[in-house]
Amino acid sequence: MPAIITLTTDFGTRDSYVAQVKGVLLSLGPPALQLVDLGHELAPHDVREGALFLRAAVPRFPDGTIHLAVVDPGVGSARRALAVEVAGQRLVGPDNGLFGWSLAQGARVHQIEAPPGTSAVSSTFHARDVFAPAAARLAHGEPLAALGARVRDALTLAWPEPEAGTDAVQGEVIHVDRFGNLITNIERAHVRLTGARVVAFGRTLPAIRDHYAQVAPGELLALFGSEGLLEIAARDASAARITGAGVGSPVAVELAGGDGAT
Amino acid sequence: MPAIITLTTDFGTRDSYVAQVKGVLLSLGPPALQLVDLGHELAPHDVREGALFLRAAVPRFPDGTIHLAVVDPGVGSARRALAVEVAGQRLVGPDNGLFGWSLAQGARVHQIEAPPGTSAVSSTFHARDVFAPAAARLAHGEPLAALGARVRDALTLAWPEPEAGTDAVQGEVIHVDRFGNLITNIERAHVRLTGARVVAFGRTLPAIRDHYAQVAPGELLALFGSEGLLEIAARDASAARITGAGVGSPVAVELAGGDGAT
Amino acid sequence: MPAIITLTTDFGTRDSYVAQVKGVLLSLGPPALQLVDLGHELAPHDVREGALFLRAAVPRFPDGTIHLAVVDPGVGSARRALAVEVAGQRLVGPDNGLFGWSLAQGARVHQIEAPPGTSAVSSTFHARDVFAPAAARLAHGEPLAALGARVRDALTLAWPEPEAGTDAVQGEVIHVDRFGNLITNIERAHVRLTGARVVAFGRTLPAIRDHYAQVAPGELLALFGSEGLLEIAARDASAARITGAGVGSPVAVELAGGDGAT
Repeated sequence: MPAIITLTTDFGTRDSYVAQVKGVLLSLGPPALQLVDLGHELAPHDVREGALFLRAAVPRFPDGTIHLAVVDPGVGSARRALAVEVAGQRLVGPDNGLFGWSLAQGARVHQIEAPPGTSAVSSTFHARDVFAPAAARLAHGEPLAALGARVRDALTLAWPEPEAGTDAVQGEVIHVDRFGNLITNIERAHVRLTGARVVAFGRTLPAIRDHYAQVAPGELLALFGSEGLLEIAARDASAARITGAGVGSPVAVELAGGDGAT
Repeated sequence: MPAIITLTTDFGTRDSYVAQVKGVLLSLGPPALQLVDLGHELAPHDVREGALFLRAAVPRFPDGTIHLAVVDPGVGSARRALAVEVAGQRLVGPDNGLFGWSLAQGARVHQIEAPPGTSAVSSTFHARDVFAPAAARLAHGEPLAALGARVRDALTLAWPEPEAGTDAVQGEVIHVDRFGNLITNIERAHVRLTGARVVAFGRTLPAIRDHYAQVAPGELLALFGSEGLLEIAARDASAARITGAGVGSPVAVELAGGDGAT
Repeated sequence: MPAIITLTTDFGTRDSYVAQVKGVLLSLGPPALQLVDLGHELAPHDVREGALFLRAAVPRFPDGTIHLAVVDPGVGSARRALAVEVAGQRLVGPDNGLFGWSLAQGARVHQIEAPPGTSAVSSTFHARDVFAPAAARLAHGEPLAALGARVRDALTLAWPEPEAGTDAVQGEVIHVDRFGNLITNIERAHVRLTGARVVAFGRTLPAIRDHYAQVAPGELLALFGSEGLLEIAARDASAARITGAGVGSPVAVELAGGDGAT
């Protein structure tokens, strides 16, 4: 089975940055290397969006997959370069919180140190000059420890956690997807489903649904999406456009027996 | 030769949806699987645009290629999941008309039924939970019939057909491409070329040309494009912007001898 | 090692054009062919942007890589189709300056001539009908000379060169990247760094920096980017938005001892 390296960046593909990284991976990696684009349209410099993306996508891949992931506003500064192993997956990228979610899952983290005799790297393009060469070394079978010392203080992001009370769970929108679905940080485990209703953006959605076709076209609904997170959607329409809500907008689930007045 | 699975969706690549599907395909598929992105920027929920895309692209691939294609506003509802075989190609996706064009080409269609003992699938992400596992089974060499029962009433879309009279052919714009070319449903076979002229959007284009450089920069022209469909284009410019026309705008070809007054 | 064909176009991926080209490559190429997307979001018909993209990306790839590259406003006209070999890389695309940068690097150029008995090709889609079949033949191991006659007058683009005086180097912005960085044509070799300061868009940037984090968020800075070209950037912000500058905007580097008054 050939080694797989996935690529996730905020570079877009109008510029040549992704292309240059692929050239380096194919030049330095093993002959039967398979490159897989995950996405290059992440919001520029939005490390939290990158972390959410990776947290959802990485666990789907076969054991041993290597994920090169770069959302890196601090490139060139003193922030470290990391190689991470978590649940059979390996991640390579900056130490800025992009991989913070993996720490709670038991990740082992190593710093990527410049090998002795390395020629000067650019200060603005570590994806090409630091992360790609490190990913290629992992693809050749080198262990994480060959790249550098163990790191025990990798950065994590302050993550908005929902607040669960007896009558309601208070959360917020953490992502708006291409279809205008508003994805919140409220998980299925937070909510007793029977009688729960969702209050958000000055509206009350009476029940949590199973799928979009359960309401009329253009109508809002709440459901647990594919990651097990509560989302506010609209059938054949954009809930973001209808409600004007976005990342950070508060969402509450009022539980059965709670005082549901809005 | 490794199995090839292509991916065509309206998911975009800023969200992790395409990435998750790729992870499942690589996890469940055969070891030497090759993934090929066809496009993920289809207009959200526009099944007709998806069907036009596939009808043009699918026949270009080697026999045995598997095409995972998802434009699926009805996900989670009772719409069926389909596996299709047509002219050596196999298609996997929703029963909503996306594959309707293949029926006229002699497609054999099977339903994708959940294998016994399947754990619960999401209601909103069948690309990951239904279509990708089915495509992986086909990539392992399983026949369509292993996925489920034969289907003889797959959905087709109402497709706008041109009306051919003695003096003129009346059609309409069915797609606007990235360059602003207005692609119609009028085929070369509909039109006697000698003396034909195109009347559209309040303008008359005097002759059907062979290529863009036959008119001055910025000027409109009509030609038969790469799929054999009449298109209105502009040299080094966007015909859509110049004319204000879009999908559904009427286009007529007046044949030699017809009353060409506009 | 499988043959690699990269793809670089201005086609976008909402239309099926890139998909059709991939189908042809996989149908006509050798069985173990690897396709690698470099980028399909190049500005439509902007040959200079395409040339800059390729000049930066192509040299990063392993020897023997084949690059199919199409930004081709003159498709269908008399402009020739070319196959180029430069420093171990091979390029296939139109003769319109897209590969002009390779001539100064000793490129060997051949015309792609239609093989005898070829069926008619489209006038608007040479990427599919001319360039992809030629790239597939190269991937099978055919030499450039098998495609057609040697060409010694391939087109090059007029390229804006910086003017170096004793007190200052005058250049201009040649590209704006996704992050709003303004990339100029001034190379490191043009500039004595000690005491140099950058004057552009009515502002003076006092020193050339090493990386973005050396200034405060939102502040402008000048540095030599990953290609060795001077760029004007802003930390965690878009220099293009802050300055209103774009391709063609003049940029000067005033050298130490020069009369630096603005």
